[in-house]
Amino acid sequence: MTIRATVWGENVHEQTNKLVGELYPKGMHGCIADALNTDPEIEATTVTLQDPEHGMTVEKLANTDVLLWWGHKVHGDVDDKIVERVAEAVWSGMGLLVLHSGHFSKIFKRLMGTPCNLSWREAGERERLWVTSRNHPIAAGLGDYFEIEMEEMYGEPFGIPEPLETVFISWFQGGEVFRSGVTYKRGAGNIFYFRPGHEAYPTYHDANVQLVLRNGVKWAYNPARRIANPTDAPNRPTEQALEKIVERGGKLHEHGEAGFR
Amino acid sequence: MTIRATVWGENVHEQTNKLVGELYPKGMHGCIADALNTDPEIEATTVTLQDPEHGMTVEKLANTDVLLWWGHKVHGDVDDKIVERVAEAVWSGMGLLVLHSGHFSKIFKRLMGTPCNLSWREAGERERLWVTSRNHPIAAGLGDYFEIEMEEMYGEPFGIPEPLETVFISWFQGGEVFRSGVTYKRGAGNIFYFRPGHEAYPTYHDANVQLVLRNGVKWAYNPARRIANPTDAPNRPTEQALEKIVERGGKLHEHGEAGFR
Amino acid sequence: MTIRATVWGENVHEQTNKLVGELYPKGMHGCIADALNTDPEIEATTVTLQDPEHGMTVEKLANTDVLLWWGHKVHGDVDDKIVERVAEAVWSGMGLLVLHSGHFSKIFKRLMGTPCNLSWREAGERERLWVTSRNHPIAAGLGDYFEIEMEEMYGEPFGIPEPLETVFISWFQGGEVFRSGVTYKRGAGNIFYFRPGHEAYPTYHDANVQLVLRNGVKWAYNPARRIANPTDAPNRPTEQALEKIVERGGKLHEHGEAGFR
Amino acid sequence: MTIRATVWGENVHEQTNKLVGELYPKGMHGCIADALNTDPEIEATTVTLQDPEHGMTVEKLANTDVLLWWGHKVHGDVDDKIVERVAEAVWSGMGLLVLHSGHFSKIFKRLMGTPCNLSWREAGERERLWVTSRNHPIAAGLGDYFEIEMEEMYGEPFGIPEPLETVFISWFQGGEVFRSGVTYKRGAGNIFYFRPGHEAYPTYHDANVQLVLRNGVKWAYNPARRIANPTDAPNRPTEQALEKIVERGGKLHEHGEAGFR
Repeated sequence: MTIRATVWGENVHEQTNKLVGELYPKGMHGCIADALNTDPEIEATTVTLQDPEHGMTVEKLANTDVLLWWGHKVHGDVDDKIVERVAEAVWSGMGLLVLHSGHFSKIFKRLMGTPCNLSWREAGERERLWVTSRNHPIAAGLGDYFEIEMEEMYGEPFGIPEPLETVFISWFQGGEVFRSGVTYKRGAGNIFYFRPGHEAYPTYHDANVQLVLRNGVKWAYNPARRIANPTDAPNRPTEQALEKIVERGGKLHEHGEAGFR
Repeated sequence: MTIRATVWGENVHEQTNKLVGELYPKGMHGCIADALNTDPEIEATTVTLQDPEHGMTVEKLANTDVLLWWGHKVHGDVDDKIVERVAEAVWSGMGLLVLHSGHFSKIFKRLMGTPCNLSWREAGERERLWVTSRNHPIAAGLGDYFEIEMEEMYGEPFGIPEPLETVFISWFQGGEVFRSGVTYKRGAGNIFYFRPGHEAYPTYHDANVQLVLRNGVKWAYNPARRIANPTDAPNRPTEQALEKIVERGGKLHEHGEAGFR
Repeated sequence: MTIRATVWGENVHEQTNKLVGELYPKGMHGCIADALNTDPEIEATTVTLQDPEHGMTVEKLANTDVLLWWGHKVHGDVDDKIVERVAEAVWSGMGLLVLHSGHFSKIFKRLMGTPCNLSWREAGERERLWVTSRNHPIAAGLGDYFEIEMEEMYGEPFGIPEPLETVFISWFQGGEVFRSGVTYKRGAGNIFYFRPGHEAYPTYHDANVQLVLRNGVKWAYNPARRIANPTDAPNRPTEQALEKIVERGGKLHEHGEAGFR
Repeated sequence: MTIRATVWGENVHEQTNKLVGELYPKGMHGCIADALNTDPEIEATTVTLQDPEHGMTVEKLANTDVLLWWGHKVHGDVDDKIVERVAEAVWSGMGLLVLHSGHFSKIFKRLMGTPCNLSWREAGERERLWVTSRNHPIAAGLGDYFEIEMEEMYGEPFGIPEPLETVFISWFQGGEVFRSGVTYKRGAGNIFYFRPGHEAYPTYHDANVQLVLRNGVKWAYNPARRIANPTDAPNRPTEQALEKIVERGGKLHEHGEAGFR
């Protein structure tokens, strides 16, 4: 029983920037999917922004256990209706990994309810990710820290809600820190934001980064059957109350009427 | 130094339903504002959906320390641009109290990132609100519980993120429970959702409910000067790094260029 | 690869009270272990207070993936040294399920840092447990609620820290509510408190209760190798610093000296 | 109406180490109290380990709104009974600020339920504290970060429960990070742990550190009347149930009997 992971790639810089294209000849999404597929428990495929419905068809989402999202340059090109569809899939139980510049993706901001802003610097500096939650499933197989020799800097304050758990905090050579691995739950969906992954560097070829991605997919996977109606607000009529009650007082709603939304 | 509270009222049922109009001749917003104004530390005013820009002008928001929001029948009529403006005010430090059916308001769903759905029944049944966080500022002056003799039922599962704190849990006569008082933080803004307040009942005339509203306003108030740029993502150029670093590796961004969003 | 669960039973009421003895001829711990062993992924054994070292030998803890704890009448008889040993096992990664009156066990209070107090009534009343986190692994296979026809009442306020997640909230016939399923993490150990289980009733024979226990064991299981040194505070000498630094200022500690504790 | 702060000082290094004695001629506690007393809303006094009952008499605790705790060398000398007394004061509503090496104090470990361990280095390196929660009351008046030129390093993983809020994260020159400002609630008591404060450096003379201490005292202050019975577990007899119920099933407890603990 494998976990079906779908890697969503923006796929713009890979096509327009020589440097990125050479680092990731199969696209960043392709590199990430390959890294996931080294694990027999995961079966990863890719879709991109340019696919019909950005690859996020109803059918594809229904067959995705965990979605990974990398976007940067054209967040605004993602259709709002697709964003809502993905959000609904998360609420119903699909796992979601948001990667690096995906902090500003519509779907992450939609699910967080915050600006998700930060400070940044593109200088190829050293990043050291410290594990703040020893033996967390997402950090399985890591020591107390790991290093990425060249990365973009993201600095605090990071405009996110208080995380459910903080798994990684980064140290940057230039003097900043950042909550680089944080978890959330939205509806039945587990969400993990993982910071590294600037397209100008070979980050997704890094063994530790790949390990965290595999761990993250397994952690985010919810084997329960997807919730059919994640946004329903059912009326429980008086005559079906679990404890016998007698209706009293005024009424706004007609019998059997749906609630206002 | 008083806290400037603004009570936002949808003001539809009060105008169209005789029962509601009689219970709240000054509107529910008027009743709530009166209850707040009994406290010398609070200075409450009202605005309604029908006001220009729904009363949520840039100026009004700048002069609001804590916003209270009651809506039900026409959530969809609230302009999306105004919702974003209110969200930004919250992120910058404005407090927000969301009341009863406001669980389905655009602004609450926007800030939560979840469906905020629940089950419901309009039967005038007894609700008993238990304090789950003794001596929480929002529960100041209350005993271990208080009762509302006739209320609409809201039942779990409630589609919200894990709260920062759970302050009240309700028992309902018909057999349900509900997390009736929950707190969140979004950016610099404190948020409190408070369940009671169905328009067909005299709930906002209840002394305990009024006390919780006053407590909630004081709790949500953040005296710090509002953040000017709650969504900014500033670049920190290499030459201004707090620790001296030397730029390395490839680059996507031109010097001084803004980040992608 | 099975999960090794150990059920710790106080085993006093079963021996001294006819009613309890008849409900649980193999002890409550025996009944619980049988329920767990219906799942091929779990291998459950039992120990009791009366065993040498209360059954919590170093070896037994090393071979326990998830510990379940039921105690009530003689919490005080558990040796403080054993409590510390169990706490250390939790910090190093052992899962822990605390059951019913175990809210007042030394180990639960030790790990929570709070009084863990509540109100109670022994009247055989109806309890209805509502799921507050749809599709949470601990609630897998349940609908929105389940009922126990006769149970002891536990009422809020419950003197616990804010949970990581609230999974169940109970409705009681006599008018109270209670956070009946809450999760925590302490060190690398997952903790789940589950309320039902008064010894005067056949609660642990209930199919839904048994399902939650099995779910809970699987949820609490952390497959990572146990942390060898969960309380160590290592010195990182200047000459081994990850970034080159030069020692400055006054010093209290001699070179290589352990820290104060 | 001033906040009554009590600064608890271990007062050992000040007496035995020339360096510390010269940096803090009035003791570290004296320096901290002086910093608090510059604020007209705070009235700070000091007690030390060497005082009768370590200065933590029933009367002193009853007259303390917020307690600050600095200890290091002789945590073990604090009487366990006094630790319980202080814990009970916190549960009943007293605020608590735990400072620097106080992470290993009995009272902090007692309230956290975790080892509170970390890694450390005494090298007088630069620490930069980043604000992770903009406009949090504890960070009022600060920019996005502040620096301490010479400090002891504390490094992750820090063995604490997931905080309610993370307010500061430190960057260290030698390559580590640390959650330097974290909040908790235990019972009705607000708790703030604040990292800086190694006794070999002039940290408590730093203006920003002093500002955070004043902010922290105000944040931790709970004006509600102290809870009289923070550990009680009252029986609610059937005949006093809020909803009428009829007693059923077996019984362990005699009428009016206290619960087991």
